[in-house]
Amino acid sequence: MKIKIFIGMMLILKSCLIFSQSSIIGFGANKVTQQKNLEAEFDRMLLADNLDGWMKLMSAEPHYLGTAYGRKNVEWMVKQFKSWGYDAKIETYQVLFPYPIVRLLELVAPEKYKAKLTAVPVAGDTYTDQGDALLPSYNAFSSDGDVTSELVFVNYGIPEDYDELEKLGVDVKGKIVIVKYYGSWRGIKPKLAAEKGAIGCIIYSDPKDDGFYAGDVYPKGAFKNATGVQRGSVMDMPLYPGDVLTPGYGATKNAKRLDWKDAPTITKIPVLPISYEDALPLLANLEGQVAPPSWRGALPITYHIGPGPARVHLKLTFDWQLKNAHNVIAKLKGKDFPDQWIIRGNHHDAWVHGAADPLSGMVALLEEARVVGMLAKAGNEPKRTLIYCAWDAEEPGLIGSTEWVEDHLDELQQKTVAYINTDGNGRGFLGAGGSHSLESMVKEVAIDVIDPQKGVSVAERLGALDLLNGGDGNPGFYALGSGSDYTPFIQHAGIAAINIGFGGENLGGEYHTIYDTYKHFKRFKDPDMSYGIALAKTVGRIVLRLANAEVLPFEFEAWYMTVQGYLSEINDLLNTMRAEVELHNAFIDKKVFFLTADPKKPFKQPSKKAIIPYVDFSPLHNALASLKVTVDALGEKSLVSLISKDVLNDKLMHAEEVLTFASGLPRRSWYRHQIYAPGFYTGYGVKTLPGVREAIEQENWEECRSQVTILTTTLQNFDAHLQSILVLN
Amino acid sequence: MKIKIFIGMMLILKSCLIFSQSSIIGFGANKVTQQKNLEAEFDRMLLADNLDGWMKLMSAEPHYLGTAYGRKNVEWMVKQFKSWGYDAKIETYQVLFPYPIVRLLELVAPEKYKAKLTAVPVAGDTYTDQGDALLPSYNAFSSDGDVTSELVFVNYGIPEDYDELEKLGVDVKGKIVIVKYYGSWRGIKPKLAAEKGAIGCIIYSDPKDDGFYAGDVYPKGAFKNATGVQRGSVMDMPLYPGDVLTPGYGATKNAKRLDWKDAPTITKIPVLPISYEDALPLLANLEGQVAPPSWRGALPITYHIGPGPARVHLKLTFDWQLKNAHNVIAKLKGKDFPDQWIIRGNHHDAWVHGAADPLSGMVALLEEARVVGMLAKAGNEPKRTLIYCAWDAEEPGLIGSTEWVEDHLDELQQKTVAYINTDGNGRGFLGAGGSHSLESMVKEVAIDVIDPQKGVSVAERLGALDLLNGGDGNPGFYALGSGSDYTPFIQHAGIAAINIGFGGENLGGEYHTIYDTYKHFKRFKDPDMSYGIALAKTVGRIVLRLANAEVLPFEFEAWYMTVQGYLSEINDLLNTMRAEVELHNAFIDKKVFFLTADPKKPFKQPSKKAIIPYVDFSPLHNALASLKVTVDALGEKSLVSLISKDVLNDKLMHAEEVLTFASGLPRRSWYRHQIYAPGFYTGYGVKTLPGVREAIEQENWEECRSQVTILTTTLQNFDAHLQSILVLN
Repeated sequence: MKIKIFIGMMLILKSCLIFSQSSIIGFGANKVTQQKNLEAEFDRMLLADNLDGWMKLMSAEPHYLGTAYGRKNVEWMVKQFKSWGYDAKIETYQVLFPYPIVRLLELVAPEKYKAKLTAVPVAGDTYTDQGDALLPSYNAFSSDGDVTSELVFVNYGIPEDYDELEKLGVDVKGKIVIVKYYGSWRGIKPKLAAEKGAIGCIIYSDPKDDGFYAGDVYPKGAFKNATGVQRGSVMDMPLYPGDVLTPGYGATKNAKRLDWKDAPTITKIPVLPISYEDALPLLANLEGQVAPPSWRGALPITYHIGPGPARVHLKLTFDWQLKNAHNVIAKLKGKDFPDQWIIRGNHHDAWVHGAADPLSGMVALLEEARVVGMLAKAGNEPKRTLIYCAWDAEEPGLIGSTEWVEDHLDELQQKTVAYINTDGNGRGFLGAGGSHSLESMVKEVAIDVIDPQKGVSVAERLGALDLLNGGDGNPGFYALGSGSDYTPFIQHAGIAAINIGFGGENLGGEYHTIYDTYKHFKRFKDPDMSYGIALAKTVGRIVLRLANAEVLPFEFEAWYMTVQGYLSEINDLLNTMRAEVELHNAFIDKKVFFLTADPKKPFKQPSKKAIIPYVDFSPLHNALASLKVTVDALGEKSLVSLISKDVLNDKLMHAEEVLTFASGLPRRSWYRHQIYAPGFYTGYGVKTLPGVREAIEQENWEECRSQVTILTTTLQNFDAHLQSILVLN
Repeated sequence: MKIKIFIGMMLILKSCLIFSQSSIIGFGANKVTQQKNLEAEFDRMLLADNLDGWMKLMSAEPHYLGTAYGRKNVEWMVKQFKSWGYDAKIETYQVLFPYPIVRLLELVAPEKYKAKLTAVPVAGDTYTDQGDALLPSYNAFSSDGDVTSELVFVNYGIPEDYDELEKLGVDVKGKIVIVKYYGSWRGIKPKLAAEKGAIGCIIYSDPKDDGFYAGDVYPKGAFKNATGVQRGSVMDMPLYPGDVLTPGYGATKNAKRLDWKDAPTITKIPVLPISYEDALPLLANLEGQVAPPSWRGALPITYHIGPGPARVHLKLTFDWQLKNAHNVIAKLKGKDFPDQWIIRGNHHDAWVHGAADPLSGMVALLEEARVVGMLAKAGNEPKRTLIYCAWDAEEPGLIGSTEWVEDHLDELQQKTVAYINTDGNGRGFLGAGGSHSLESMVKEVAIDVIDPQKGVSVAERLGALDLLNGGDGNPGFYALGSGSDYTPFIQHAGIAAINIGFGGENLGGEYHTIYDTYKHFKRFKDPDMSYGIALAKTVGRIVLRLANAEVLPFEFEAWYMTVQGYLSEINDLLNTMRAEVELHNAFIDKKVFFLTADPKKPFKQPSKKAIIPYVDFSPLHNALASLKVTVDALGEKSLVSLISKDVLNDKLMHAEEVLTFASGLPRRSWYRHQIYAPGFYTGYGVKTLPGVREAIEQENWEECRSQVTILTTTLQNFDAHLQSILVLN
């Protein structure tokens, strides 16, 4: 009996009924109709044509950091915001941004090939034919370098791949690695390669991941053709994001700056992204062992690991200049609580045209802001202050948002209720993540927004997908790692944050290439902008409810359940690691590896691994047990009927900050949140309870014990904070 | 916690100790040393050079059914057997064998391409350069045909693939299907395609399965180059194997024959195998939906399903002639029990040169027979009669062995103790399967044979592999479906059978191509023939123990455990199917399929499925419970000390036959065994407890109930048979 199916059946029967609610978290029963009417009016005023026209305008030319067209977009946005009644301005930071001067990659043996490093224009899409205006493909914050060595293929270049290479007896020391995009955030690839001793790193897009294997290629289909190259930052963002020269403080004009040669977030080795057309001759000239099945891509070759005989020369030189990063900051003052801020953002800079990334999200934000402004003009001013932001320099490393948060840290921590982020939008299913104290509120909103294709709520459609995938029909809210502008808010400032977008039916290979154009978007993403409108409806509701709620819609039952789940995961992780080590060592005692190895292939006898100790997690369990009592009591309390709502809201909006620890995570003090962080070796991928979890993963048991103590204290502080709400009248 | 790992740990601790045994099943303690000495002498006399020389000789030219070189090999073998003291002769049957006259495959739209249908000779292997002597690539027992239609890609062409096509709204009626090799026995592909209404079938070797994706291609490596084509039979062997014109009786000279146009095992539609070079233009010209990820191969295209616009013309004409199939039958009379026969076989015909398939097994059999003969000459005559067989016409459909078994059915059922089959041999790990009453004996043998690469027993090496793969270190004996010459013995005659070979470290793409040559074998398979010798040692021991045992080494504890396991599987199958149907129907009620479907892609609303009923398996459980009591009692009885050993051995050697049912399985009476059969829709793949299992799979509940009754009776008869042993003195 497949247990999964039985569980599926049990869950489907009890899966929650999804229908439009007659209550709203944080609103008294007498305020619900008024708010719902406001939201209905908001919906009616949204115009898809605006999204379409604005996307076409803003994506007409490349607009990466420092471009004239980017500046033009910024000025145009300020004008728009002002026309909608906002107090809008540009806030500018001076940040380091490398522009590629020399990009040379050549195969020097056993045959010669010079990489073209240029994506071709395609018929029917004149945006791809803008010549020098198109930013050359490169990885921002690669170091300069000039290296020549044998090549080694290292799959996705993640820790498991190096474990496999060790088993196979292959060393990358002194070599240049070639690695596939995907499998991790790209910046992890050169970081790990350098740690392993490689002297250069080439990242290519294998057609298996987003080329012809995945679907028809551009212009016939949405996927990456042979020449497309994904640009992207390789800054060591898991250490700290933002300007590499001003860690932890704003990159204002006169800020003290590191020498760029000392900047710890610039890669240690040169890195270059290439197309699969350019990767083919390199990979085809590798010999040595055949790559394991899971490493093989879709190029018509036998994938070998090397090293060599392919020998490559990689030379990269960048122009390291300070550029002006222009954030647009547009305020609409709250009529009742002007010092309680709801911040809403999306970045405006793109690697090239950026129709999908970021403009599909940006134009939905603009339309949302327009209608909110119109409603305010018509007498529906928000109770709390709204701040709409269009960030610059997100692509090179979340720079615009990070510098702004660092620059205004104290005030933001004092006044911000929550930050809501978007960053590109597609067609299909709602994806929402963030601080779990806001999960219930977002789910409530999702029940009120209708899916434009299926006529049911976006919550119901997402629930159906979850059922199809074996879930219980009540999909969770994902935890935030990194990868967009929510990072400085939640990870550094401890401000509750949400990230939202639609997707799943708009797959393609255009990400960060010259093919992410208006033409491509209109054919393959959200042609009628109906999901852009759905996004505006979803986020607009979130903003309007946060703005007008009597009691801020934070809720802690989902939060507790989630964190309890993380603790279980960590328990399981430790037990699994222990069992794996025991099995591995038993295999060595029984010569299993030796006896099963093919003697005609290289074989390295693995050595025994250190035993995984038992760790005392009881302080964490006790802290959570106590929290459960508090959370349950809070759940039974009618907050909307309290007299002291001002104190209550002040406590609610500052709860997230209690989850931070001032000295941050080990070896990366910028990251302060104790529940969520991007993984040190996964990049964008989140690590929950990161201090403890990464100590376990790294088998650093002393650090594990001290992190258990810090996390316990954090949970106890959070408990005390919630208890202080419990006593309010 | 990963449960698998914990179980792995528990099992590794209790996994059996593997060391050389001081007892042998069926031998009294006082006879063990003598037998062990004989086996040691047998080992010493084996010569790897013989295998090498004989393989080179026999594979020098193509020797498929009806060739002069095949006849030459047969005569040479007879001479050899005679020189070793055997009474050897040729037994010939007249069997239908189609030879290709016209093989035409062309793409007629949207562009033109004429398939080459020819594998190229390769440098360094002159065997591949024998021109017309090389049998053109085709599928034997394809019907004649001349069809033109749109093409549809149907993955492996197995039932699940047609389920998927139905979901996608694609119909193959009136179309020509193109299907990948692998995923099922090849004959299932045209059978199912015809049932679904297709009018032609093209089978190609995708490079993902055994071409460049799997490893370097010939001649650089062992895998299939762009031009290699797998030949093979597509006769409907799950209905009955052997000569298509003489079902159930020997194809002797004057046998009554069906008209070949009425032969039910010839395909209903024309079928042709092609290379991936020839498949590429066909697949590249398909449009329509992109194939699901698991369907996609390694060609550098986006795999589409069609139908069309690729339109192909397939024309096939065969010369349908009777050919002489020459079996070599060599007897060595037993000195004590001449009417108890141990039969040992391997086929000698090949599609082309057949160095690996079948000669690597054939030459090991010959060397085994030579040494057995020499030992007999030196005074160690076997107590029972040995019959060494070299079968003809195995490749087109197990024809030589099947006709021989059908021709001599009564005598074989009366006299045969067991049949031991080999069919090609490689390097690596022991693979053994067959009647589970012989499992313990074979496992005992495996403990006494040393692996030539690792110096431990082949049992220990296999146990290590099982541990590595998550097993308990005590791998089972597989059940026999079909695919080699054991089929008529076990499935039709109810004679206990074993199939044995080494492999796992000799992967390649040469199977049934012009590249299965002596050169290829020596480079990539078993270069020093050391596994050929290991095979001779393993099977030689089995033969010598069966020949000389005081009590025939049948044992029923492993048999009981295995059949009990099959019954559990069938229980689980029914429960899983029920849960899947319930979930499917619940999904329809909740509109899960509709809500998750991308409206920009074709979508066919699935309909509700019929509820899976509960079936009364208690008669089977009761029969097995009773059998357990008998088997346990038998395990406690000292058989070697019984007086009535003649009756005992007679009962033991006829036990397997009790597991057959005279009228056979539903719709295929030729298959009589009630525990094992090849799957009606899997071909080679075994279905255990086939009557009940296939009724469940086909959701034929009336048949399921009647098959439960038949199987119960079979098990009760078997119980009675074993009980009649229990009462012997």
